[in-house]
Amino acid sequence: LPIREQELISRIRSSARKGTASAKSAATRVIQGIGDDCAVLRTAAGNDSLVTTDFCIEGVHFRREWHPAHAVGHRCLVRGLSDIAAMGGEPAAAFLSLAMPADLPQKWVDEFFDGLLALAATAKVQLSGGDIAESPSGILADIMVIGSVPTNKAILRSGAQPGDRIFVTGELGGPSFVLGKMFEQPKKKWRASAFPSHFYPQPQLAVGRYLRDKGIASAMIDISDGLSTDLAHICDESQSGAVIHTNAVPRATVGRHEVPMSFALHGGDEYQLLFTSPQGKRVPAEIAGIPVTHIGYMIPEQELLIEHENGYTTELVPEGWEHFESDRLSAARARKKRKR
Amino acid sequence: LPIREQELISRIRSSARKGTASAKSAATRVIQGIGDDCAVLRTAAGNDSLVTTDFCIEGVHFRREWHPAHAVGHRCLVRGLSDIAAMGGEPAAAFLSLAMPADLPQKWVDEFFDGLLALAATAKVQLSGGDIAESPSGILADIMVIGSVPTNKAILRSGAQPGDRIFVTGELGGPSFVLGKMFEQPKKKWRASAFPSHFYPQPQLAVGRYLRDKGIASAMIDISDGLSTDLAHICDESQSGAVIHTNAVPRATVGRHEVPMSFALHGGDEYQLLFTSPQGKRVPAEIAGIPVTHIGYMIPEQELLIEHENGYTTELVPEGWEHFESDRLSAARARKKRKR
Repeated sequence: LPIREQELISRIRSSARKGTASAKSAATRVIQGIGDDCAVLRTAAGNDSLVTTDFCIEGVHFRREWHPAHAVGHRCLVRGLSDIAAMGGEPAAAFLSLAMPADLPQKWVDEFFDGLLALAATAKVQLSGGDIAESPSGILADIMVIGSVPTNKAILRSGAQPGDRIFVTGELGGPSFVLGKMFEQPKKKWRASAFPSHFYPQPQLAVGRYLRDKGIASAMIDISDGLSTDLAHICDESQSGAVIHTNAVPRATVGRHEVPMSFALHGGDEYQLLFTSPQGKRVPAEIAGIPVTHIGYMIPEQELLIEHENGYTTELVPEGWEHFESDRLSAARARKKRKR
Repeated sequence: LPIREQELISRIRSSARKGTASAKSAATRVIQGIGDDCAVLRTAAGNDSLVTTDFCIEGVHFRREWHPAHAVGHRCLVRGLSDIAAMGGEPAAAFLSLAMPADLPQKWVDEFFDGLLALAATAKVQLSGGDIAESPSGILADIMVIGSVPTNKAILRSGAQPGDRIFVTGELGGPSFVLGKMFEQPKKKWRASAFPSHFYPQPQLAVGRYLRDKGIASAMIDISDGLSTDLAHICDESQSGAVIHTNAVPRATVGRHEVPMSFALHGGDEYQLLFTSPQGKRVPAEIAGIPVTHIGYMIPEQELLIEHENGYTTELVPEGWEHFESDRLSAARARKKRKR
């Protein structure tokens, strides 16, 4: 390992402590962070705890030649924070298990932690524990985030009802479109600052909290696997179906062009929120500076449909975002179509 | 991957549900397990939450040719449960992140989960989430366990005072001695049932709870890195030192012989508890069927000492258990000795 495990842990421990003060008023506080067998957390009465864990694996979720270590650290934590956002919760503590090849430069490790801890400070999350090990091959991080939500107020995937409207935050397809470009030009140096939605996606914590606080969302999920797959998750858990309108899906602009629709429908790593809201509830067109767009409706039939510009409705097949498998990113796909 | 991620998750989900009922009366209950962006846990008022995360990496913590998948699953979860025991806590929920090579047989995965879920049922822990990914090389599991302890009652590493007596549970050195034998005869087939302390170590949850409940322990840690290293952790966090007596350290018997002292002093993966207790507190010689042995005292000087049979006292150098690095397991070691 770059430096001895104990030395690395004590470095991380002192960096992690700096973020502590900000969490004092939170519903969940870190009583004991790094340095014992377990971290000790205290959650104020009237709150439930939220727990999420996500891998961030070299070659699967990032590539060392494309993604600066700082962005990898950011993207690693954002996966967990986004899951907390999708429940309408407040993040409190993060735990990082990091397996590294023996020859990994210490500079890489330092920049990774800089990126992760910068986002942790913004989100008022304290790095409170984890594990470090030598990996037989490649970098492998597992991030766990613990948060809280008022008792019984977590917004689940299972709460959607037929008739509920379907919304998304932000614009979709940017991160996966950039990834597609990387596969087309693998030797090119991609500037992280030019493609923030890919390199530095933001967790939609403020939007998630607002929706929960105002009781607007009946079901919610973050779009990490792609709109089609994540909408299928809501349908499965809510035992109903959905129809969305092609025209309505907000597409990201990369460079000077809107991305092709397939990226907006199927691309992952969005970290935008997909939610449903009962008819009659007022849903603002913008929350915390993020546009909110009505894209469809829940239906009683357990099927996933898309209504095209020409008026035809076909089945929307969840494509199951597989991160860095380039063949999944091709815009032209053979799709089983079914007229109704 | 052996079977499609979604199919694997739904299998795990249905197996994990079976253990649910047992946790109904616990201080921390699982409100929403596998199947949403986050798990939702509810901790009864008057309790703190405990969180621990541990890697279990092929080639580092186990070898596929030596350890049956069932034992690997058991050993993976025991790492987390043992950390909860070391705080005097009650485990409630486990989260497993599992990265697997594409060619891993489904049988291996099934047996791994059988082993993990069998121990989870015994410990009344519900598998409540995690992540699954393809690994570029080898099997890599990260286990996270969440538990609870009455508010402010977690037994930290930092609570030891000079004069406190030092105790260990059980007998030490067995698991690392067996591992040493494996390195000597790498082709031999080792029967898991013949060496339970190595293949199926038990978390000392009942002992930890008893010590916390009766207010016996001032500091506690589980012996996962070896007695010398874990005692050094207690000394570091408590800003004091320790002296232990060679004669007193309880050595495991493997086959018909006691293991050499070096295994008892430095071998890891014990999952026994090491704790300190203020003078005057009565410490039972056996708790929950596990022997408890007085092995030394805390001292004000920040040094780690060992008193030998011949009356000499030398420095006890923490050897930093590095799991499967065979060269660390050799009984004959050059050691810097210092007479006092």
